[in-house]
Amino acid sequence: MTDILLVFTTDLGSTRAMAESVAAGVRSVPDVTLRVLELLTGDEGTPDDVRRADGLLMGSPVKHRNMHHRVKKFVERLYEQLWLTDEMVGKVGGVFTVGGGHGDAGAGCELAMLGMHAALAASGCVIVPFPKCSPGADAAGLHWGPAGRTGGPKMEPHPLTADMLLAGYHHGANVARVAEALKGKDLFARGNVAPTPEVLALFQNAGAM
Amino acid sequence: MTDILLVFTTDLGSTRAMAESVAAGVRSVPDVTLRVLELLTGDEGTPDDVRRADGLLMGSPVKHRNMHHRVKKFVERLYEQLWLTDEMVGKVGGVFTVGGGHGDAGAGCELAMLGMHAALAASGCVIVPFPKCSPGADAAGLHWGPAGRTGGPKMEPHPLTADMLLAGYHHGANVARVAEALKGKDLFARGNVAPTPEVLALFQNAGAM
Amino acid sequence: MTDILLVFTTDLGSTRAMAESVAAGVRSVPDVTLRVLELLTGDEGTPDDVRRADGLLMGSPVKHRNMHHRVKKFVERLYEQLWLTDEMVGKVGGVFTVGGGHGDAGAGCELAMLGMHAALAASGCVIVPFPKCSPGADAAGLHWGPAGRTGGPKMEPHPLTADMLLAGYHHGANVARVAEALKGKDLFARGNVAPTPEVLALFQNAGAM
Amino acid sequence: MTDILLVFTTDLGSTRAMAESVAAGVRSVPDVTLRVLELLTGDEGTPDDVRRADGLLMGSPVKHRNMHHRVKKFVERLYEQLWLTDEMVGKVGGVFTVGGGHGDAGAGCELAMLGMHAALAASGCVIVPFPKCSPGADAAGLHWGPAGRTGGPKMEPHPLTADMLLAGYHHGANVARVAEALKGKDLFARGNVAPTPEVLALFQNAGAM
Repeated sequence: MTDILLVFTTDLGSTRAMAESVAAGVRSVPDVTLRVLELLTGDEGTPDDVRRADGLLMGSPVKHRNMHHRVKKFVERLYEQLWLTDEMVGKVGGVFTVGGGHGDAGAGCELAMLGMHAALAASGCVIVPFPKCSPGADAAGLHWGPAGRTGGPKMEPHPLTADMLLAGYHHGANVARVAEALKGKDLFARGNVAPTPEVLALFQNAGAM
Repeated sequence: MTDILLVFTTDLGSTRAMAESVAAGVRSVPDVTLRVLELLTGDEGTPDDVRRADGLLMGSPVKHRNMHHRVKKFVERLYEQLWLTDEMVGKVGGVFTVGGGHGDAGAGCELAMLGMHAALAASGCVIVPFPKCSPGADAAGLHWGPAGRTGGPKMEPHPLTADMLLAGYHHGANVARVAEALKGKDLFARGNVAPTPEVLALFQNAGAM
Repeated sequence: MTDILLVFTTDLGSTRAMAESVAAGVRSVPDVTLRVLELLTGDEGTPDDVRRADGLLMGSPVKHRNMHHRVKKFVERLYEQLWLTDEMVGKVGGVFTVGGGHGDAGAGCELAMLGMHAALAASGCVIVPFPKCSPGADAAGLHWGPAGRTGGPKMEPHPLTADMLLAGYHHGANVARVAEALKGKDLFARGNVAPTPEVLALFQNAGAM
Repeated sequence: MTDILLVFTTDLGSTRAMAESVAAGVRSVPDVTLRVLELLTGDEGTPDDVRRADGLLMGSPVKHRNMHHRVKKFVERLYEQLWLTDEMVGKVGGVFTVGGGHGDAGAGCELAMLGMHAALAASGCVIVPFPKCSPGADAAGLHWGPAGRTGGPKMEPHPLTADMLLAGYHHGANVARVAEALKGKDLFARGNVAPTPEVLALFQNAGAM
């Protein structure tokens, strides 16, 4: 079984709605188990919760152009610790956001997603993008992950649409499938890998260039 | 055979030196073929060059805090076209940079790498990070990819060190192995995937939240 | 007179339309002169064109999630050279983009703007944001600058709207006014500034922390 | 008097050391008052603390490639509220970070700074960069702000050096001087600014392009 951990927080419920749709997508993939962790303070979860996961999904409201501070606290408590011991290397990660979208140009969801991707990449996780061909991508699509909107250009509030949730659903399924494909494989070099003599020679000559 | 395309440009030769090391890493992986494309103007390469690749490696000097304009031209000519037709979805990507490093804080290599990752992610490519445990990562390591330095904090020039090249070598091998693991798999949803009735019901109720 | 240089490129004309609106905004400010440089290849302009400017406006189509390669070439040719000699320190900068906007989440305009801001900041320019209260900001507003859209969520093409152009107009005027307010002031420390003995003592004790 | 608010948090004391140096720089500028707010939980400070400031300095440890969650909480509590009412428009902002620097390529300080700049820009603040010519910039310089390092490439710990603190000192002074130059000026358009008839005609013709 491939194990997926979905971590999110929400203020008003919209990110939970998107998370439910992402969760449904994960569950649609055979032989995958899903654990969901909703952050109420950022103090939830243990290192083992992260260690057991083959894939990590992170969802956050866009809070003043970055991830929610509760998600950030979770990252600092768990990912940073497991980064130190290289225990997340080779896992698979994906992210999503929900925001009001004032201005019709993303309203900062790109940097909010990149902040979460940075946390995953620093830990050594392979990053799953959200391709244009994904169902729902035209309604809620950034290449870094689904971006649900709960407001129009002038901040007039509206719920997530079915198409936006569809984007989340397929991103969840995509991440689960990539995690399944990479599960248990040992693909990343670690400190004890010696290059061949030919390669060593290449490095020793580098100073001449 | 897994096919890797390594695209780079160089002004003074250092990025070529790093690219050679990355190439040696790719070649160290069994059953992988490598094609190398050095950009002299940015007009080199064809859509088929990209289509054939299972994995894409991109290297650039850091030029005023972003990728070189020749690399950008290549992206616009080929990736943007293949984005339109969704022909890069599911490929595997990795990046590296070489820069002077003035100031001892990266000198903009992070945004330069993110620009290249954005080009890959937009096209639907899975992103391979550069973990801390990688040999050479302490000499040339950003989580987004190896970052060779050809200058000290005060811009005193020096060649890439063997440790920096070692970082490139292992990143090349990592990307090749991930590309091999994902090659030929159809992991990403496309427009014709219908959710189940249960999921459709979930979406139809979304408006109530 | 405060001197503003507006640099842009366009593929299909939309970024030129936005640039014209930005230019009208610059001209609406008393005692400001405007020079406009349209890049056809990226080889246009001289170091003196940049040196003479008190404020720099940069506009680009979003090309696969980053600035156009012609704008990037301009940056490499001129800004990087003047960075070396610290000749742009204290100038004022602002940016804008035009893009299709597929997905309703910015489609990469944030990183495209940040790439241009990085070029300005590296050169020592003060950055002018685009506040939410700006007329037109709800139609074309990212905090990093106006972001015109020439497509709907599904990439259905449409021209820039009057409200989007209004955003550009006011950004041009804002940048001109900030440039006017800072013109000729010598606000940034340079290498020959010595701290006082009290401050030196603070630094010498730092090792104890 | 120009009023500067310096907000920071620290885990081990190094960011406080840098903040003290930044503070000394602010105080070196005549006719400037400084208020310092150290965040122990992120719940400190009031909207009025921010409203009174002409300039805002923000400092954070780099925590897994982004600002500290306590700084983020402060942003959400105060900046996001004052964004809604446009009360920070035209203030002046600057940022700094302290981090271990593993890998010799910034270790994520660029995205950490950009996250803080995004919070400032979204609120309408003018951004002060950290130019290469600044004393100390070669020891602790990113263009987005000073970046102190408390570790070598292999994470061997060391205190901030006098040169790194010097960078902070001059950034504090730069931000104070720019804030002084822009204090009380009304430079940003707000919703009630009408374009001239000529400009309106420009916008009405836009649809033809």
